[in-house]
Amino acid sequence: MLGYGELLAFERMAADARFAPDLHRRAVLSEMAALEITNYRRLADRLSSLGADPEAAMTPYVEPLRAYHDRTQPRDWLEALTKAYVGDSVADDFFREVAAFLGEPDRELVLEVLHDSRYGEFAAKEIRSAIELDPKLANRLSMWARRLIGEGLSQAQRVAADRPALAMLLVTGSGDQQGVQALLKRLTQAHGARMSAAGLNN
Amino acid sequence: MLGYGELLAFERMAADARFAPDLHRRAVLSEMAALEITNYRRLADRLSSLGADPEAAMTPYVEPLRAYHDRTQPRDWLEALTKAYVGDSVADDFFREVAAFLGEPDRELVLEVLHDSRYGEFAAKEIRSAIELDPKLANRLSMWARRLIGEGLSQAQRVAADRPALAMLLVTGSGDQQGVQALLKRLTQAHGARMSAAGLNN
Repeated sequence: MLGYGELLAFERMAADARFAPDLHRRAVLSEMAALEITNYRRLADRLSSLGADPEAAMTPYVEPLRAYHDRTQPRDWLEALTKAYVGDSVADDFFREVAAFLGEPDRELVLEVLHDSRYGEFAAKEIRSAIELDPKLANRLSMWARRLIGEGLSQAQRVAADRPALAMLLVTGSGDQQGVQALLKRLTQAHGARMSAAGLNN
Repeated sequence: MLGYGELLAFERMAADARFAPDLHRRAVLSEMAALEITNYRRLADRLSSLGADPEAAMTPYVEPLRAYHDRTQPRDWLEALTKAYVGDSVADDFFREVAAFLGEPDRELVLEVLHDSRYGEFAAKEIRSAIELDPKLANRLSMWARRLIGEGLSQAQRVAADRPALAMLLVTGSGDQQGVQALLKRLTQAHGARMSAAGLNN
């Protein structure tokens, strides 16, 4: 799921770079994208070394991830950046939590491929500056971020329903239903903190 | 020119990856693309360290490179691969020749960012296998390769006309008009050898 997510994030971010207002910003989003493909390769190689066919292993996630991206196509630079910042970060937090339930070397591998925070800081700064120049943007981008989270959750539920083993990993890893609640609370809090850091409101 | 070429090649190859018949091939073209953006960054950083604004330095090449890509939009996977293989390789050979006329550290930098041959081998093998399965393809892809070269040359002439300093670098670097002829001959021969290696004809 993480592997196919990286591949798709690569393609979408590479395409979204066209919205950048200048060459520097276009290159930064392209670099964020390029990082994903390196991660894809590491995950695909690990799947192969476990004797799995990466393509077959990723197939169940093709449709939900495609649906998420199709329903959250940015219309401009700030929406593209907010998507990379808000959407990818929630996903990263989720994968980081799940990684804790894995044995080595998978735990380490997942943690390593999760996003480099330096791009998150770039995105937060860009969004914040844009809102300072035009405070009305805060509202539009906050709504957009809520839509990203809503679509993300909806696809996540679909994955959980289709892949009980993944849902079980979450429950057994967290200990119990309360553990899952605590995990979701941590995700929500981190998301809220990121929204504030970028000048957005929940 | 090389820097902006890398950025644009990144975007086009990332988009062309959608033509791939399977996940493995899609990932390989995406990885070829990702390599370009790393190179873009190295070249942009070098421009900055020379006191130039990378965006301003690249502006003269935006239009000819955009025109080249707009006129050579692949319609399927094999056209995309042939474009990455044939078009990028001729451009690389050209930049490698020009690099010989530069002082250090620029010569080394340009040579380093030029493409990794392992992807060229992947592309040649893919094209060759496809032709073995369907010999009629050789004709269509050879025509496509000729069109790529034709469009590339036409934009190169435009750049040379607009940027006499670049054209002069070529002449003074080669020694004289005969030197330029010899350089062009080397490019043509290397291109011919690549076409044969992929089962294409000039």
